[in-house]
Amino acid sequence: MVAQIVDKGMVAVEKSLRQVIDSDIDTLHDASHHIIESGGKRIRPRLTLLAYLAAGGDRPETVVDLAAAIEMVHTATLVHDDINDHSLTRRGKVTVHARWGRTFALLTGDYLFTKVYELMAPYGAPYNVIMAEACVKLVEGETLQAVAAKAGQMDREIYKTIIARKTASLFEAGAYMGALLAGADDQMATALHDFGHNLGLAFQIMDDILDIIGDPEVTGKPVGLDVAKGMGVMMAQNGNKRPAGQPVATAVADVSTEIERDGVTEMLARLRDSGAVEVARQQAQEVASRARTALYRVPASPARDALEDLIDMVMEREQ
Amino acid sequence: MVAQIVDKGMVAVEKSLRQVIDSDIDTLHDASHHIIESGGKRIRPRLTLLAYLAAGGDRPETVVDLAAAIEMVHTATLVHDDINDHSLTRRGKVTVHARWGRTFALLTGDYLFTKVYELMAPYGAPYNVIMAEACVKLVEGETLQAVAAKAGQMDREIYKTIIARKTASLFEAGAYMGALLAGADDQMATALHDFGHNLGLAFQIMDDILDIIGDPEVTGKPVGLDVAKGMGVMMAQNGNKRPAGQPVATAVADVSTEIERDGVTEMLARLRDSGAVEVARQQAQEVASRARTALYRVPASPARDALEDLIDMVMEREQ
Repeated sequence: MVAQIVDKGMVAVEKSLRQVIDSDIDTLHDASHHIIESGGKRIRPRLTLLAYLAAGGDRPETVVDLAAAIEMVHTATLVHDDINDHSLTRRGKVTVHARWGRTFALLTGDYLFTKVYELMAPYGAPYNVIMAEACVKLVEGETLQAVAAKAGQMDREIYKTIIARKTASLFEAGAYMGALLAGADDQMATALHDFGHNLGLAFQIMDDILDIIGDPEVTGKPVGLDVAKGMGVMMAQNGNKRPAGQPVATAVADVSTEIERDGVTEMLARLRDSGAVEVARQQAQEVASRARTALYRVPASPARDALEDLIDMVMEREQ
Repeated sequence: MVAQIVDKGMVAVEKSLRQVIDSDIDTLHDASHHIIESGGKRIRPRLTLLAYLAAGGDRPETVVDLAAAIEMVHTATLVHDDINDHSLTRRGKVTVHARWGRTFALLTGDYLFTKVYELMAPYGAPYNVIMAEACVKLVEGETLQAVAAKAGQMDREIYKTIIARKTASLFEAGAYMGALLAGADDQMATALHDFGHNLGLAFQIMDDILDIIGDPEVTGKPVGLDVAKGMGVMMAQNGNKRPAGQPVATAVADVSTEIERDGVTEMLARLRDSGAVEVARQQAQEVASRARTALYRVPASPARDALEDLIDMVMEREQ
């Protein structure tokens, strides 16, 4: 029953995503459809929809555009990320950047961001305030990551701040707004917010692990992409059992600032041997367990079970 | 009296603009303050504020964040434009792109855009819908310009569409929302919308003229910047008295697609000799006159007089 509602909801989310990006400017139309239709896990809108249902919402059609907006923020940042990372493939397809060039990729990212705004506008003030805050945090997290990568400085605390802002912010905002829209009281909305936050952290740590040990054929993007930006250094640091807050081991920091692929290959090997991946996986399990605890503050229901399944999906994902 | 209210309002707009961009991420903080504090004419927030007053609004403090949001959209697009144009100076200062590099300029533009969202969120649905639409049009206009420049195809109709979307959209949205916030009826809100629209068109045509004949010492940016992207071709075409909708004269189109500065210098000379500037100025006078006519549908008041002064400011500006 819930599975059917979710399936139907996710179909509606896809429809919303595709309709809102239609444009009479061919380039924007084509580039936007290219990235939106390249797939992706859609975990953020699924979380938003399920949070709405778990909080007792019974008109899922009202949460569709909100869920689509959450995915749209994520998609807009992907397009801009790919410019900054010079990435050629994303989700197994050519990036907007690689196909349409930098100028149009920049404009396409901006365009998708205006579409977030368009999807959200009808929801009114509280939702727009929450969404705006999430977007601010997200850009701050991305910037902090770029700053840390450029400086070759990354420690466990900085890493935590980065993933909380750049990834967990959107997860928690989606879950929280879904709950609010269902009329959840403070307690339940906060529980779902906390669930989203910790699920987002787990998702990002697993994402960074996949960047080291993932199969590019399965993940659809080159391995070592984020390691090159210094994200993997946190894991190396954990593997080296360095105290939090202290600059990373110089040897690792040195390779982490090398953007060249040669350096990346060497660093990946070093990371795999360091035991860092196991430590990172343990951290992911910790936050996943916090997500589970938060969920127990929500009344039992098939939707809550489906939210719990999201944890497994995140922890077991291979792409 | 109105002058004092406007002065006070514009001081509050500046304060709002500066406060909202504060961040604990130094790079975002510094780059945002750099561009926001580099000045600019602030014609968009002034228009928004004056439209509010002309429509009978008597609590100008309520329109301050709205006016700031309008300027913030403009500022965000400037930062991204400068990336795409490889511009080194803006408002007589180094661009964010030139000083912080492309990655941080892209993120700073995104950050400023999230701040639009933050400033607008409390205003609720109708305002956010109008603002979202304006932002979509703006990005579409920018894209259309890039497409036309790349293809070396620019005619009078395309030019009109571009400036209506990329420039007039924000002017009209600011004036319209200012009027709505003051409680204007449909008739008055529409009159101020139309005023903003035509003022925006006049502003952009004059801007493109300044790109050809302006003094870089006064404008604070290099001459021939937009001509290189093909905008000036519309004027050349008018100077050549070619019918609207027809591709531009090959000779002009050829130089217009040359981004190199040498080609630009030659093209500028050609444009100045072609009489195109005079034709463009005539077009600006036409839309300025339409702006004036729209204004006469608004009851006479000192604020309306101040709006009329904006027309003169646009038509006589040298920077």
